[in-house]
Amino acid sequence: MHIVCLDMEGVLVPEIWINVSLKTGIEELKLTTRDISDYDVLMKKRIGLLEKHKLTIGDIQSVIRTMDPLPGGREFLDELRAKTQVLILSDTFTQFAAPLMEKLAWPTLFCNTLMIDGLGRVTDYRLRIKDGKKKTVEALHSIGFTVTAAGDSYNDVTMLKSADKGIFFRPPASILKEFPDLPVTETFAELMAEIDAFIGA
Amino acid sequence: MHIVCLDMEGVLVPEIWINVSLKTGIEELKLTTRDISDYDVLMKKRIGLLEKHKLTIGDIQSVIRTMDPLPGGREFLDELRAKTQVLILSDTFTQFAAPLMEKLAWPTLFCNTLMIDGLGRVTDYRLRIKDGKKKTVEALHSIGFTVTAAGDSYNDVTMLKSADKGIFFRPPASILKEFPDLPVTETFAELMAEIDAFIGA
Repeated sequence: MHIVCLDMEGVLVPEIWINVSLKTGIEELKLTTRDISDYDVLMKKRIGLLEKHKLTIGDIQSVIRTMDPLPGGREFLDELRAKTQVLILSDTFTQFAAPLMEKLAWPTLFCNTLMIDGLGRVTDYRLRIKDGKKKTVEALHSIGFTVTAAGDSYNDVTMLKSADKGIFFRPPASILKEFPDLPVTETFAELMAEIDAFIGA
Repeated sequence: MHIVCLDMEGVLVPEIWINVSLKTGIEELKLTTRDISDYDVLMKKRIGLLEKHKLTIGDIQSVIRTMDPLPGGREFLDELRAKTQVLILSDTFTQFAAPLMEKLAWPTLFCNTLMIDGLGRVTDYRLRIKDGKKKTVEALHSIGFTVTAAGDSYNDVTMLKSADKGIFFRPPASILKEFPDLPVTETFAELMAEIDAFIGA
């Protein structure tokens, strides 16, 4: 039995932190896992910047509520959910995800949690588990699933490699040089064709 | 991080085999896991009855397409998906589930597969894994989730007992006598209240 694990940001929705950077004018918030492959280093930097600029969780949520799925993302996901099972595996946070999940008709999302203090300040983050995307693929294998996975970033690579079928979607050139053995797709039609070919849909 | 695992038949949708029995007039197809606790014995009996009465997968799918979720089931599920993550864990089959999942707005479903021959006859069934509901709870624990589970039948008991919080929903009296230690709910409002109290929503 098949299941498809999809990265969220860069695949179905825009990069949240980049949008926060654009709206707030804080240039350094543009950095993502595409730029800094160590997620803890990246998150510590982001939390420090929020503190420095006195941005609360409410400020960030206001930005997220203005965002929409990437063009074609909702339609791709709707079509995929009608033909097989889907999970969204993301390094985002529950506090960020809800408005975007609503716009995607509430697919099931496995992600992380931000620690927020009484004044709405982001004090820390909590990973559900270390290397959660890869561990989730392994857990799905342990209960009899054949796993297809698609993502765009450094934080997707261990997931893509542990899946039965791993597919890059719109990856940056830098990752392609490091991991030239994974198939690369640029459009939702190409991604769907790769998935269909593997699951026999 | 929380996730809720819900049984499908008897919780969100009516019992599929009972509906097939009513529409076809084959009385013995009414038996469910509420009546026969050994799932393999029950399925072998069902497949034998389909063969005896020359019912194809197409005949059964015709019945399923006429079914609707239980009153309030869609609304309960919509509300739950907006507040936490949800998986449907069912012993049903991919070939049965799709029309009902569409009516529930495509929640993620972990279930099993029927073996169908070239003439549309059901020849066998394939479990994704033995004791799949319980194993799925264990797999979710292994990736950092706190698990709430709700179900009505014998095939839910190991899931309910391995979850951090297990809740009966409209169980038959016979099960309650055997497992008096699990909380019992009869309405979606009661079930939601039990879930909210546990996850702190």
